[in-house]
Amino acid sequence: MIRRAMRAGVPLGLLAALALPALALAKGDGDSLGAYDKGALVETTLINTLWVLVAAVLVLFMQAGFAMLEIGFSRQKNAGSGVAKILTNLSIAALAYWSVGFALAFGVDDSVSGLFGTDGFFLQDYEDAVPSEALAEAGVVNGDPRAAFPVMGLSDASIEAKWLFQFAFCAVSLAIVWGTTLERIKYMAYVAYAVVFSAIIYPVGSHWVFGGGWLQESVGMQDFAGSTAVHLIGATGALAALLLLGPRKNKFGPDRKARAIPGHSMPLVGLGTIILFIGWFGFNAGSTFNVEDLRFAEVAVVTLLGGAGGVIGAFVATTVFQKTIDIGMVANGMIGGLVAITAPSGYVESWSAPIIGLVAGVIVVAGVLAIEKRLDDPVGALSAHGLAGVWGTLSCGIFTSPRLAQYNAFGEESGGLWYSGSFAQLGHQALGVVVVFTFVLVLSLATFALIKATIGLRVEDEAEDAGLDIVEHGMYGYPEQFIPLPEIGAASHGPAAPGGFGNGAAAPEPAGSHAMSAKGATA
Amino acid sequence: MIRRAMRAGVPLGLLAALALPALALAKGDGDSLGAYDKGALVETTLINTLWVLVAAVLVLFMQAGFAMLEIGFSRQKNAGSGVAKILTNLSIAALAYWSVGFALAFGVDDSVSGLFGTDGFFLQDYEDAVPSEALAEAGVVNGDPRAAFPVMGLSDASIEAKWLFQFAFCAVSLAIVWGTTLERIKYMAYVAYAVVFSAIIYPVGSHWVFGGGWLQESVGMQDFAGSTAVHLIGATGALAALLLLGPRKNKFGPDRKARAIPGHSMPLVGLGTIILFIGWFGFNAGSTFNVEDLRFAEVAVVTLLGGAGGVIGAFVATTVFQKTIDIGMVANGMIGGLVAITAPSGYVESWSAPIIGLVAGVIVVAGVLAIEKRLDDPVGALSAHGLAGVWGTLSCGIFTSPRLAQYNAFGEESGGLWYSGSFAQLGHQALGVVVVFTFVLVLSLATFALIKATIGLRVEDEAEDAGLDIVEHGMYGYPEQFIPLPEIGAASHGPAAPGGFGNGAAAPEPAGSHAMSAKGATA
Amino acid sequence: MIRRAMRAGVPLGLLAALALPALALAKGDGDSLGAYDKGALVETTLINTLWVLVAAVLVLFMQAGFAMLEIGFSRQKNAGSGVAKILTNLSIAALAYWSVGFALAFGVDDSVSGLFGTDGFFLQDYEDAVPSEALAEAGVVNGDPRAAFPVMGLSDASIEAKWLFQFAFCAVSLAIVWGTTLERIKYMAYVAYAVVFSAIIYPVGSHWVFGGGWLQESVGMQDFAGSTAVHLIGATGALAALLLLGPRKNKFGPDRKARAIPGHSMPLVGLGTIILFIGWFGFNAGSTFNVEDLRFAEVAVVTLLGGAGGVIGAFVATTVFQKTIDIGMVANGMIGGLVAITAPSGYVESWSAPIIGLVAGVIVVAGVLAIEKRLDDPVGALSAHGLAGVWGTLSCGIFTSPRLAQYNAFGEESGGLWYSGSFAQLGHQALGVVVVFTFVLVLSLATFALIKATIGLRVEDEAEDAGLDIVEHGMYGYPEQFIPLPEIGAASHGPAAPGGFGNGAAAPEPAGSHAMSAKGATA
Repeated sequence: MIRRAMRAGVPLGLLAALALPALALAKGDGDSLGAYDKGALVETTLINTLWVLVAAVLVLFMQAGFAMLEIGFSRQKNAGSGVAKILTNLSIAALAYWSVGFALAFGVDDSVSGLFGTDGFFLQDYEDAVPSEALAEAGVVNGDPRAAFPVMGLSDASIEAKWLFQFAFCAVSLAIVWGTTLERIKYMAYVAYAVVFSAIIYPVGSHWVFGGGWLQESVGMQDFAGSTAVHLIGATGALAALLLLGPRKNKFGPDRKARAIPGHSMPLVGLGTIILFIGWFGFNAGSTFNVEDLRFAEVAVVTLLGGAGGVIGAFVATTVFQKTIDIGMVANGMIGGLVAITAPSGYVESWSAPIIGLVAGVIVVAGVLAIEKRLDDPVGALSAHGLAGVWGTLSCGIFTSPRLAQYNAFGEESGGLWYSGSFAQLGHQALGVVVVFTFVLVLSLATFALIKATIGLRVEDEAEDAGLDIVEHGMYGYPEQFIPLPEIGAASHGPAAPGGFGNGAAAPEPAGSHAMSAKGATA
Repeated sequence: MIRRAMRAGVPLGLLAALALPALALAKGDGDSLGAYDKGALVETTLINTLWVLVAAVLVLFMQAGFAMLEIGFSRQKNAGSGVAKILTNLSIAALAYWSVGFALAFGVDDSVSGLFGTDGFFLQDYEDAVPSEALAEAGVVNGDPRAAFPVMGLSDASIEAKWLFQFAFCAVSLAIVWGTTLERIKYMAYVAYAVVFSAIIYPVGSHWVFGGGWLQESVGMQDFAGSTAVHLIGATGALAALLLLGPRKNKFGPDRKARAIPGHSMPLVGLGTIILFIGWFGFNAGSTFNVEDLRFAEVAVVTLLGGAGGVIGAFVATTVFQKTIDIGMVANGMIGGLVAITAPSGYVESWSAPIIGLVAGVIVVAGVLAIEKRLDDPVGALSAHGLAGVWGTLSCGIFTSPRLAQYNAFGEESGGLWYSGSFAQLGHQALGVVVVFTFVLVLSLATFALIKATIGLRVEDEAEDAGLDIVEHGMYGYPEQFIPLPEIGAASHGPAAPGGFGNGAAAPEPAGSHAMSAKGATA
Repeated sequence: MIRRAMRAGVPLGLLAALALPALALAKGDGDSLGAYDKGALVETTLINTLWVLVAAVLVLFMQAGFAMLEIGFSRQKNAGSGVAKILTNLSIAALAYWSVGFALAFGVDDSVSGLFGTDGFFLQDYEDAVPSEALAEAGVVNGDPRAAFPVMGLSDASIEAKWLFQFAFCAVSLAIVWGTTLERIKYMAYVAYAVVFSAIIYPVGSHWVFGGGWLQESVGMQDFAGSTAVHLIGATGALAALLLLGPRKNKFGPDRKARAIPGHSMPLVGLGTIILFIGWFGFNAGSTFNVEDLRFAEVAVVTLLGGAGGVIGAFVATTVFQKTIDIGMVANGMIGGLVAITAPSGYVESWSAPIIGLVAGVIVVAGVLAIEKRLDDPVGALSAHGLAGVWGTLSCGIFTSPRLAQYNAFGEESGGLWYSGSFAQLGHQALGVVVVFTFVLVLSLATFALIKATIGLRVEDEAEDAGLDIVEHGMYGYPEQFIPLPEIGAASHGPAAPGGFGNGAAAPEPAGSHAMSAKGATA
């Protein structure tokens, strides 16, 4: 009964959330258009906005990457659920980040000591924003969105493009969370956590790291595009979920040893990985928010080299540790390399990138092998996004180049350990990692505990056996693998093709019985 | 015999069509290059052209989305045919739209009272074009392509980029048509309709709505990126096809009740949906044709919010109406939300977008459930592109903001019902929908009737049982699901993997019999 | 033993290669940033760099296209291996092309008579580069990367963007190689050839054709985007591999006639083809390296028309030659059309494009049918990339327009045979094809022969039967197709769905036995 009530209640909650936008309708959008009418747009605004928008689209495409990766690592009986999941979460996050999240992540935070932003809900209530001195010198006036979102005010790209880009980051972080929960979590638990995550947890955590918050401004933590702010936050949410959810049935045998539960499609895993790789060029290179200084192309090269290093590191590690070339490990090696290079991509010279990636690749393989002894993480997200995210963040403390630290104006001017001989930057990085991990873990554990106590977190045993597709969705992701053929439109399968058949002639025999043998079954 | 003759005849017709370009070879292309040599290119031309080209590529990518969506909603025995279909149709449309369609859609239409354009075939015969007063003031001279294609002359992007973008729209509209015809239409019927659709039906219909034709100029219909001009036109063609084609065998039981014939792969449906979502950022935001006023980023945000609303609307509706979370419904909800926001994306403030999308999502689910009682539309295109397209077009009549109506300079200056309290714009929208629907339905019914009487529209019963792949293509889309293993290269399947196997050792036993058991069959 | 040693040795070699970058760490990157600080960036640099970077990302996305295409044309038992292969090769190529390849391909070659470049390793050691007269006039100074990479110095886009673009080309060429080797080559043979190919064979070959080498500068060969330099080079490597590797088991029967071994998934083939199509807009249109003259949009249109012609040519040819519409042939027709239009895309008027594509489509089908009588090329790469590449290169000799030959400043100013009545350009093209083919074939045969003698080229018979996935990777690409269900997490499959099941109720019976019948097997 409670479950049914929740099932009805959550949609109602969503509808309520949707009513919120109506509150904001008094004001028009039109900021950019107004500036255009006044002839106030400067030329770099156009090209910077174009780049940020294109980069945002690349990052949004990563949703397809996560979907294919997670579906590929699931068994067939749970493959369809991932489709509905990714679309629902993306949509919830869009509304939550638009109405609330972005303001918390990038709004002016002076009144709350840098803890979170307090302006810019619905991309609208920033007419009172006063620019900082530096921005005022650059011509930013009161009420300009650049005044309202100070960190991103350094780029003159339009606020809508920047919002889309930052939303895409939020959606990536959220997608990472589900990796550990495959094949057993309740659909409605997804929905509920997605609201909290994209409205509060991710915005506040990322604000501290790269939204102008205290870790960035006061501690001097460096995280160019989000090894911590996006990947570690997602992986920490994933860990919290896993701790309360437990492993899939039969993952651990009576001897407590882990058994492999292979995903159903490596081709989909491969497709997902390459899509993520492509998206990363928007992710890291777009984090420059402008093209004016041409750094975006340098960041793109560094990103490629990091990803390449990750593959080679994982390839070597899987060959050595597993005596075979594990396909999932190679794919996770690329992801780990890219995750690791994300924080340093705007801080290091290109020679460091393959090294950072290589180490990440080894860490990912070793991490998966170590973690799976205790925890059931079907996709390896804890390792590829979590451990590699930590390593990538720390690697700034080693490899950050003085000229780039100074250019970005965050952290030690003397650069990382390699250049400065000092552990100072490494210390800032480590502090940032610990703080963010703790913050996200505590809030996520609390959220999931609440969900567990109300909606429930895990499907029942029999449902797990049957698969989420049939239980949550009333259908199969691959119906022809599960439903006896006569039920899928009678006689739906063709006969095996004998020699001369196939140039348009009709099927020579009733198809029903052939269909069976065509599936490889004999009586 | 006739069938064989047609099979030979259509390719010959294509060859003939291909000979046409040779007629145009007297003139070189080189317009842009000439302008460059003369130093006549203005700076915004470069960035506007770049944006339109990038947007065009995003829209072209939607072909992969439609392919995956339609293949995923097909049964395995018809999965391969969709591959050949999408590539063939795309190619036919490219040649037809280049040689004829674009001129009809966007050429100067003064001599035929706004019914269709009469210049610009092969992107070449526009040397006599005279610019309108407004364009002449903007520096456009006689023979400039901007003079030849007046509506798009408002942007200074190069004509080749604009052509590519508009062609991509035509290809999207054509791809929508096939959704209703899956699993039973003859391949050659596709080919024939594709020629007529992309050379005549789509160009003329879209000319009226957003090519400067009478619905846009005289009636004041608003359709920013094609809820009607692209999506409803495609869905109407799909309806015409379906009316003459009838349902798949066994779709309706002896009791006349519809039975589910589930598609074979929800993961492919999900992939297709996300690719369509990505393409929509080019589709809507590219319809600005420039970056100068920065509206393209605003349109992108509105598009995202509309799609998100669509998912949530469909999610709520499927939960309420179907007591489960139907995966296909959630996917179609996103598509419906995006279809609906397409017309208003350049006319409404962002607060309206989630509402327009939410309503669309509910309409899509209700529409699919209502339509499938009578008609067999395997992908839900009538609902997701048709009903949502109608709703999206009408929604301009409600939500269009006065400032944007004035800026775009089409329709009532006082905006939609919400702002003006007047039903005037809603009336214009409704008229436009009725006119376009009727026009496309009549022409499409006539075309399909002609095809039915000559080539034939539907494969034979036995062929439908056997599947289009083997019958039309002489092969299977998934051969290993249908062909007994020994025929696919003898002993092609490996044994089940026992424990210690896998580090390079050879297979321990003859593979043949194992292969059978590996497929899950036992004697 | 030797095999085990090699298995260990190759990773060690990779680690050694990775140590190389460390040699380059003395210098910072920072060239572009320095220029920015000095205010020396001109405005076109920004937009040209943006376009080259976006184009590079599109070309990189083609890796997903090749992966899906090659996996789709493989049998299920070899499907997973393709995933690891594409990621590993991409990564090896990234490091090899960064450290060595790019310098050989585009560096100053004066000291070695145009044979290969000698500067620019690690994108760094070009501080001594002296610009050519033409570049010096354009304001290029000593040590500017534009001085170091003369051919690309004609564009002012940043060197990092250009490198990324050229690397993506190298990765495409490398991906083409593996098409002929599917389902039987050793994984480590891939790895070894990838190093040689991306560090030496591709760079030197492409240098001659479009890197400023002797075929381009002295002979006057025209190849705008690489019909020869990328596609023929890849296909020639593929031929070399095939000659030493031999056909798959049972490809040729005791009667020496070829038997079809169909790939397992046409949907993946279709997805791959469309992704390649999309990538080609970056490939050809990006080869302008700038947007200033707006040619990039013209090249994009020509590319589309070429691809469309290819599909229609192949569609007609398969209908005529095979009496059916072979799906793989239609897909390869698109690829062949695109390959063919690649060389002429910057040299011909748009009317020629569909003709060049149409001929390519016919050649591809005829080529596949002729080649498969003797050689086992599972994907048709020899035809689609090789023969179509040759045709495309030769087609410049026929269709090159005088105005574009003059604008590009390579080859005969009077254009191709059609315009000039002269066979001169055709002769240059033929010479180029013969030279490059011979060079790549000899070097590749030598490399593969060396690999065969050490690592070994082909897996053992039993391994070929069992499939590369289980043998090389210790796992299956599609585990549920091969592993008895109880081993994949006990009772992992759900029951067939009876009527009322699916709204959340638990599975009514033990799932194990049902799972079997759900696969379509009966006792």
